[in-house]
Amino acid sequence: MTRRGFVSLVGAGPGHPDHLTVKAVRCLEEAEVVLHDALVSDEVCAIAAKALRINVGKRAGRAQTPQAEIERLLIEAAQQGLKVVRLKGGDPFVFGRGGEEALALQRAGIAYEVVPGVTSAVGAPTLAGIPVTHRGLSPGFVVLTGSDVESVDRVLASLAPGSLTVVVLMGIGVRATVAERMMARGWTADTPAAIVRGAATSDMWTWRGSLSTLASVDLPEASTPGTIIVGAVTAVPIEISNQKGEAHVRA
Amino acid sequence: MTRRGFVSLVGAGPGHPDHLTVKAVRCLEEAEVVLHDALVSDEVCAIAAKALRINVGKRAGRAQTPQAEIERLLIEAAQQGLKVVRLKGGDPFVFGRGGEEALALQRAGIAYEVVPGVTSAVGAPTLAGIPVTHRGLSPGFVVLTGSDVESVDRVLASLAPGSLTVVVLMGIGVRATVAERMMARGWTADTPAAIVRGAATSDMWTWRGSLSTLASVDLPEASTPGTIIVGAVTAVPIEISNQKGEAHVRA
Repeated sequence: MTRRGFVSLVGAGPGHPDHLTVKAVRCLEEAEVVLHDALVSDEVCAIAAKALRINVGKRAGRAQTPQAEIERLLIEAAQQGLKVVRLKGGDPFVFGRGGEEALALQRAGIAYEVVPGVTSAVGAPTLAGIPVTHRGLSPGFVVLTGSDVESVDRVLASLAPGSLTVVVLMGIGVRATVAERMMARGWTADTPAAIVRGAATSDMWTWRGSLSTLASVDLPEASTPGTIIVGAVTAVPIEISNQKGEAHVRA
Repeated sequence: MTRRGFVSLVGAGPGHPDHLTVKAVRCLEEAEVVLHDALVSDEVCAIAAKALRINVGKRAGRAQTPQAEIERLLIEAAQQGLKVVRLKGGDPFVFGRGGEEALALQRAGIAYEVVPGVTSAVGAPTLAGIPVTHRGLSPGFVVLTGSDVESVDRVLASLAPGSLTVVVLMGIGVRATVAERMMARGWTADTPAAIVRGAATSDMWTWRGSLSTLASVDLPEASTPGTIIVGAVTAVPIEISNQKGEAHVRA
């Protein structure tokens, strides 16, 4: 009898292995092939000790593996009877193209499952002591990605200014654009804002300020991605020290 | 020397122990006192094998422990030098009043940490095969709670109709209200919608339909909470079978 392959689309959470789910750890331990994004940390990948590990994400100078190629690799490995993990930062269905991969597997007749992870949209602010909702300050939150500016514009166009907490994943590179577009759409310059980088690592770094200072904030050099949070909740005075015990920056 | 108490505000994820994080499991295993919400499952609570477990949530006929009382219990237990876990469904900072508890602990000089969990806002749709974002269908998503209708109104008032995926936590009891208010605000009656109940359990139940059918959907009797998702992403034809292998309902 031929062994039947299986694909798990797994969320790796915000970065540190402590924030993987029990199920994600089990999938990694049992995996024979892991296709992971560049943002997934080495410590997390190392849990897949017996797997062939393939980085399909962007990395210094090398382009990302095209989406169609990722889907082909997943299908071919499963057709060879292997246990395959597709490992993504955060949750596989939050800006992860996990939905497209699920559809491709389904069309190819491959059995698969989806394993949710702690999305950085919630995990990064929570680890930095920023509650995305808080009584009297925010009745809800909006999550968008900074990875393309057109999508930022479309989301901002559909939101009344000042209404909800706004969380921008992968937002650091476009922080000036986000700040300018929000102010142009009527968000006041003194709306509190924050940046969280390297959540859940010993290098976690939090900046707090406002929309008017967000554009010009000077960032330490690092390749870790970051989450922008805009709204009154970022001014709630909850103090969390990072693992080094360093104070956080308030602008 | 007096032993120093410590409080961990821990997210329990969508329900099943498989979706706890590694860190949440460790906190529970080491806990001496656990204050948990009613929605946290027995299997998850059982991991805190050596802890005194106190249910501070609403339960048949008994009122919820008042928030001030919960905070007092956390502080007193920590002041007695105990390892305390405050265990909440999902993530502690998503509609969990975790921010208020963090501030209360801080004011009392108690050392604490916040441990993110998989919020049902993402975990429930992901487990049901609904990607909250999907290329060409949704540039982002909004999360709100159905636990008070006034807050639903405030969020809807700030959103352009049809723009983003809308996720309503604790929404089942107010599904008719949510549907009516959205249509009154210009969302079309055929906007796709879904309900996910008991995500991550063997009783996971998914309904798919539209805003016009959401109001009248007949629900199986159960006390499990549910998540409503509204938007084109709920019509992406990803098929996930639940643990019983039952087909899901499409209306």
